Amino acid sequence: MAGIVETRLNELGIVLSAPRAPMANYVPFVRTGGMLTVSGQVCIDGDGKLVAKGQLGGAVSLEDGQKAARACAINLLAQVKAALGDLDKVVRVVRLGGFINSAPGFSEGPKVMNGASDLMVAVFGDRGRHARSTVGVAALPADAAVEVEGLFEVS
Amino acid sequence: MAGIVETRLNELGIVLSAPRAPMANYVPFVRTGGMLTVSGQVCIDGDGKLVAKGQLGGAVSLEDGQKAARACAINLLAQVKAALGDLDKVVRVVRLGGFINSAPGFSEGPKVMNGASDLMVAVFGDRGRHARSTVGVAALPADAAVEVEGLFEVS
Amino acid sequence: MAGIVETRLNELGIVLSAPRAPMANYVPFVRTGGMLTVSGQVCIDGDGKLVAKGQLGGAVSLEDGQKAARACAINLLAQVKAALGDLDKVVRVVRLGGFINSAPGFSEGPKVMNGASDLMVAVFGDRGRHARSTVGVAALPADAAVEVEGLFEVS
Repeated sequence: MAGIVETRLNELGIVLSAPRAPMANYVPFVRTGGMLTVSGQVCIDGDGKLVAKGQLGGAVSLEDGQKAARACAINLLAQVKAALGDLDKVVRVVRLGGFINSAPGFSEGPKVMNGASDLMVAVFGDRGRHARSTVGVAALPADAAVEVEGLFEVS
Repeated sequence: MAGIVETRLNELGIVLSAPRAPMANYVPFVRTGGMLTVSGQVCIDGDGKLVAKGQLGGAVSLEDGQKAARACAINLLAQVKAALGDLDKVVRVVRLGGFINSAPGFSEGPKVMNGASDLMVAVFGDRGRHARSTVGVAALPADAAVEVEGLFEVS
Repeated sequence: MAGIVETRLNELGIVLSAPRAPMANYVPFVRTGGMLTVSGQVCIDGDGKLVAKGQLGGAVSLEDGQKAARACAINLLAQVKAALGDLDKVVRVVRLGGFINSAPGFSEGPKVMNGASDLMVAVFGDRGRHARSTVGVAALPADAAVEVEGLFEVS
């Protein structure tokens, strides 16, 4: 039987693909006590394709950046499900760190990052309301437009 | 009656303004057990104006960057007070993450970030001595010169 | 008598130099309960010289970037030893945050960062397998090519 959060995912039409293997010699998550640290996830969709490639303030539009941030959040959820088995075990989304591949001077990172934040609140409700830092970086793995890391309180 | 830390703030002539609302769909802080995670704060003063706008190594001087980092630290304290009610409940400033809006090659991020670190030590004494990471980023929200996030051990 | 981890360091030919003092007004690590937060370490060797200076995707080769990331990891270990006395007290490397000084569009940060991740796994085995976020930044302290911060679960 699907849990409450997975039922909500279904209602939103979100399918969690198999969690991506790390691109290098590390692991996708580490649990220590009640905290789950999830590695930075880039904006790859279920087919392994980048949702947006390049820089905000450059070739990537604000709207595509938001879709990319949303994809990062979905990839975080896929890792959380792999870690916990059941997304209902998420007590709180504690923090998201958003890295926006940005041309110098691009100032709308928070709007881009909302693609990830809105998803968390849509899925988890108040438990999805998180602390957040958003910064514009010069480069990201695979030239992805967005990367998001996550910290979750879990039971 | 003002607590020890607030008395110290008064001595330093620092006024905590009302904590800024997040610029987007997230919350300014999350407490999990004895840890308080505070969202990245940009260098906005009590009137809602950027203390410094643009890049270090560009239009922003080292001195203005330091003032900007100090303003970020004051904004962190305003959030901590909103979270705890009483700043004396801060057991330790655990970590500051400093993001300096930087032209490529700008190498004096640590001097900029001292504006935040010095403030924490001035306010909290030894409890204010923290771990820190300072990096130069390509862009920040609202083209702020500095953004600082914080992690606090609290009682 | 050397512990298990230090014996392994010897086998790998790695010498931990005296941990570097912070470049500014902060501390190299903070312990809170069972968690040790270590400040960002740049790629300085035991003689105080940068292992690589400048940007990946610019003057710094991929191979030199990997050596730089490895040096950052060794500097993290020197701080952990200073904090704990005995590296065998590391229960788990929880998270590494990798900041790669990058020209815009440089997309191979993960390969660079493997220099740090591989070292942790070589030294600690499965306990060294960590969550990780890697981003390309516009500038780093002293124009270092790589900076790495660490979070460790300790006993």
